[in-house]
Amino acid sequence: MRIPLEPQHRTPLFRQIEAHLRRSIASGRLPAGTRLPSTRRLASDLGVNRLTVENAYAELEADGLIAGRAGSGTYVLAASPLPPLPPRDASAPWPRWQRELAGRRGATLGDPLGRTPAPARHRHLIRLDGGTGDPRLFPAEEFRKVIQGVMRREGASALGYGDPGGFFPLRRTIAHVLTAQGVPARPENVLVTAGSQRALALVSALLLRPGDAVVVERPTYAGALELFRAHGLRIVGVPIDAQGMRVEELETLLLQHHPRLIYTLPTFQNPTGACLSAPRRRQLLALAARHSVPILEDDYVGDLRYEGRAQPALKASDPQGHVIYVSTFSKMLMPGLRTGFLVAEGPVLDGLRQLQRVEELATCNLMQRALEAYITVGRYQAHLRRASRLYRRRRDAMLRAVERSLPSQVQVEAPAGGLFLWLRLPEGYSSAELLPVAEAAGVRIAPGGDFFPDAGDGARFLRLCFAAHEPEELLEGVRRLATALRSAEHPAPPAVGRRRGPGNERGAVEHGRAEQLPSLPPRA
Amino acid sequence: MRIPLEPQHRTPLFRQIEAHLRRSIASGRLPAGTRLPSTRRLASDLGVNRLTVENAYAELEADGLIAGRAGSGTYVLAASPLPPLPPRDASAPWPRWQRELAGRRGATLGDPLGRTPAPARHRHLIRLDGGTGDPRLFPAEEFRKVIQGVMRREGASALGYGDPGGFFPLRRTIAHVLTAQGVPARPENVLVTAGSQRALALVSALLLRPGDAVVVERPTYAGALELFRAHGLRIVGVPIDAQGMRVEELETLLLQHHPRLIYTLPTFQNPTGACLSAPRRRQLLALAARHSVPILEDDYVGDLRYEGRAQPALKASDPQGHVIYVSTFSKMLMPGLRTGFLVAEGPVLDGLRQLQRVEELATCNLMQRALEAYITVGRYQAHLRRASRLYRRRRDAMLRAVERSLPSQVQVEAPAGGLFLWLRLPEGYSSAELLPVAEAAGVRIAPGGDFFPDAGDGARFLRLCFAAHEPEELLEGVRRLATALRSAEHPAPPAVGRRRGPGNERGAVEHGRAEQLPSLPPRA
Repeated sequence: MRIPLEPQHRTPLFRQIEAHLRRSIASGRLPAGTRLPSTRRLASDLGVNRLTVENAYAELEADGLIAGRAGSGTYVLAASPLPPLPPRDASAPWPRWQRELAGRRGATLGDPLGRTPAPARHRHLIRLDGGTGDPRLFPAEEFRKVIQGVMRREGASALGYGDPGGFFPLRRTIAHVLTAQGVPARPENVLVTAGSQRALALVSALLLRPGDAVVVERPTYAGALELFRAHGLRIVGVPIDAQGMRVEELETLLLQHHPRLIYTLPTFQNPTGACLSAPRRRQLLALAARHSVPILEDDYVGDLRYEGRAQPALKASDPQGHVIYVSTFSKMLMPGLRTGFLVAEGPVLDGLRQLQRVEELATCNLMQRALEAYITVGRYQAHLRRASRLYRRRRDAMLRAVERSLPSQVQVEAPAGGLFLWLRLPEGYSSAELLPVAEAAGVRIAPGGDFFPDAGDGARFLRLCFAAHEPEELLEGVRRLATALRSAEHPAPPAVGRRRGPGNERGAVEHGRAEQLPSLPPRA
Repeated sequence: MRIPLEPQHRTPLFRQIEAHLRRSIASGRLPAGTRLPSTRRLASDLGVNRLTVENAYAELEADGLIAGRAGSGTYVLAASPLPPLPPRDASAPWPRWQRELAGRRGATLGDPLGRTPAPARHRHLIRLDGGTGDPRLFPAEEFRKVIQGVMRREGASALGYGDPGGFFPLRRTIAHVLTAQGVPARPENVLVTAGSQRALALVSALLLRPGDAVVVERPTYAGALELFRAHGLRIVGVPIDAQGMRVEELETLLLQHHPRLIYTLPTFQNPTGACLSAPRRRQLLALAARHSVPILEDDYVGDLRYEGRAQPALKASDPQGHVIYVSTFSKMLMPGLRTGFLVAEGPVLDGLRQLQRVEELATCNLMQRALEAYITVGRYQAHLRRASRLYRRRRDAMLRAVERSLPSQVQVEAPAGGLFLWLRLPEGYSSAELLPVAEAAGVRIAPGGDFFPDAGDGARFLRLCFAAHEPEELLEGVRRLATALRSAEHPAPPAVGRRRGPGNERGAVEHGRAEQLPSLPPRA
């Protein structure tokens, strides 16, 4: 196949290849069913890198124009093979029950596809808004081999329903890992779920009714806020500082709102990175017991520590069964695993297991078996060590970049683990207004409003993920953010320093003083 | 490895091998970490079939005593490596919120692990209580290759979150398949779910609140009943006969109970096998529109037809968006796929998509890609044709067995498709009481009570799955059921024939007259 390319043109080569193939398919020169050359072959024909051709094919495949078939190549799909839909009378309204839906529950749901980002005007957007590790580090090839081994060895049984509570050897392996981390667990107390989000949803559905109150940190994980909103709950926020949730303010809220659940991320909190101090952990457990409110402990990335000593999980000090512990392997491995788990005991464990069974029947059996094999032979631990080294370097690189490129009034704190930096902008700035400006400058951020029960409270905050990019990309991304901040039309921040100014709940320091922070534990 | 075996002993060889290994592990003769010989090697050493050794290993693995590792062999696991749990004060009660849980929601949940079967006293239990096709037909090897192809080609991207609404090419393929079956569908109206049970759960969670009423057929799919009970709904049953739901009785119930949802399995209904007639399909759609009640159409196995012409799905005649259509590939392929889907439009689709996103983030990406590749190259269709031929023969074999072995007062009807026979016992019998007797005789049945909103109404019914066993096994299973019926201590059924007796809503015929039924469509 010959495709005319212009290497000097500002359109990237993969876009040139993509555009050529797109035209050829639309014009019928490449009719449906045509087998395209392999990426290796076409790259060699065109004298370009194979990755360039793969990128072009990926774009066409995402648009449903071509499709790769296992073991047989890549084919052009039929351009528009679906017959026209029977006409729907556009003037006829939706059925009444559909119209009423918005008022009943849909109203709390927001945009069904989440935030619709501004069209990316920048050709090479650097996405610092993500919530996972680096896909380039996913051990995809090792996992491919593990899956092969499982399917060769176990055949159809790897594809049956399996144990509704989870593949027993995996639950056993999880119990071992947790026990080694100080959380005494037994396989029979572990429930494997289709991702940790699913675990949160099961707990919420079992324990709360629409209108019930749930306590969260303010700010907290955006996905939990969305879930609790969708379930029609009243969300009560507790402020957070560098030592985690301000537990001393909790009791008043418990007395006032009678919540049915306390949701907390005590370690490398999302988004702030804060770790709950040992005294506050004890206070929190005591309060939960005194008021008989269950604690949902989300330890989404507790084993991704860069320095300092680990605080034991809340679940490690829970002899009476007040804590439901949730975690996942997805953040460190691959989100597509959809394999999380929870640890609980007593009636709540029975209820969760039963609710999961009636809502799902079972969790993907093959993935559980593959994950178990992967962990048991020590590959997960090796991967975790490697990722921790890399992510620590990236955190340090991003902190240095923030220090060098952003105005000194921007506040940030070095987290001792996890994936995120949490930035506080000078007075007068709004991260929501910054968002499109930053997009135009070529960087995407997570605006602070996403993480607060009341979005307005997050106006001056933003979250950056340092784990998913190489140091040079982080540097460039922060430089673009600096450009965006300069061009955001706002009054220059006052010259007076504002560290620990009023309302600065996190007690963050100005990064101008924070040169040594990266290698220190979070400030007490 | 040498294991003394007694081929003439009544204990099967695999149990002898299993017991020997179990003792060796318990005694420490095979310490943790020992690599066991391959099944091929041990089978050759012992002069037995390889399958015999595989069965022994499978039993030990299921108990967590040994584990196979991809590409490296099978190892003995540590016997009891978990340290003792910190003592829990047995006299201390669970926290109050845990104790209250039973009263709040747990009360409706029943046994967390579902029915606990009587200990299987029979060594070779024939399980006719299942709800899936034959695991031996799962195209596990083809699927292994497809997964390999996807992972080789797409690497880490096959293991990312993916599109929350489902992998686009798979949605496109599903739209094509449905359009070909007369249900006009567009990829953007398809939502891929983690199994069809998950689709039912999302619809129930979005549209109904605890205390709301839902209409179901009486009897209906047990998994839907359990789900609706767990969600705290009022369940209103409509009787069913050979032409499906008695729609003429529906309007009264709509006026009386104001249900928020009508759940129906119009084609090869579970458990009865009935198909809703064309006039009733029209009536049902008209009633739903008049009373503005959404219909949840569960087409769990609509493409598994053995004879006669297909009725179009309800969704095929739904220009206004009253019907939410749910189906799955799991029944025909492998339940472990955990991949189902729904088709809807309008606000309800937005709401379902959003609820799925906040409760799960995404559905297993790799499985969706593998399934798409498998279907698109025509392997699903070929598998379906092959399975249909086989299952039809099995249905006929079971019908003949019922006719020959069971008392003539047992009533049954030949379903034109699906997986099940639905049997009605003579007066005085109870399938719940029959259950343990049948277990002792070596056959497991699904008792009728599981399928009725009020279990008592199902006392005289039972469901048998014909799809998962070879004809000889079905024959033997039905023979054992006959033994169980004879030994059930009940008055002999009266000599008077009772076909179409009072209360026999399905209008079933006595199988003594049903010799030609297997090749006929269901009686009108």
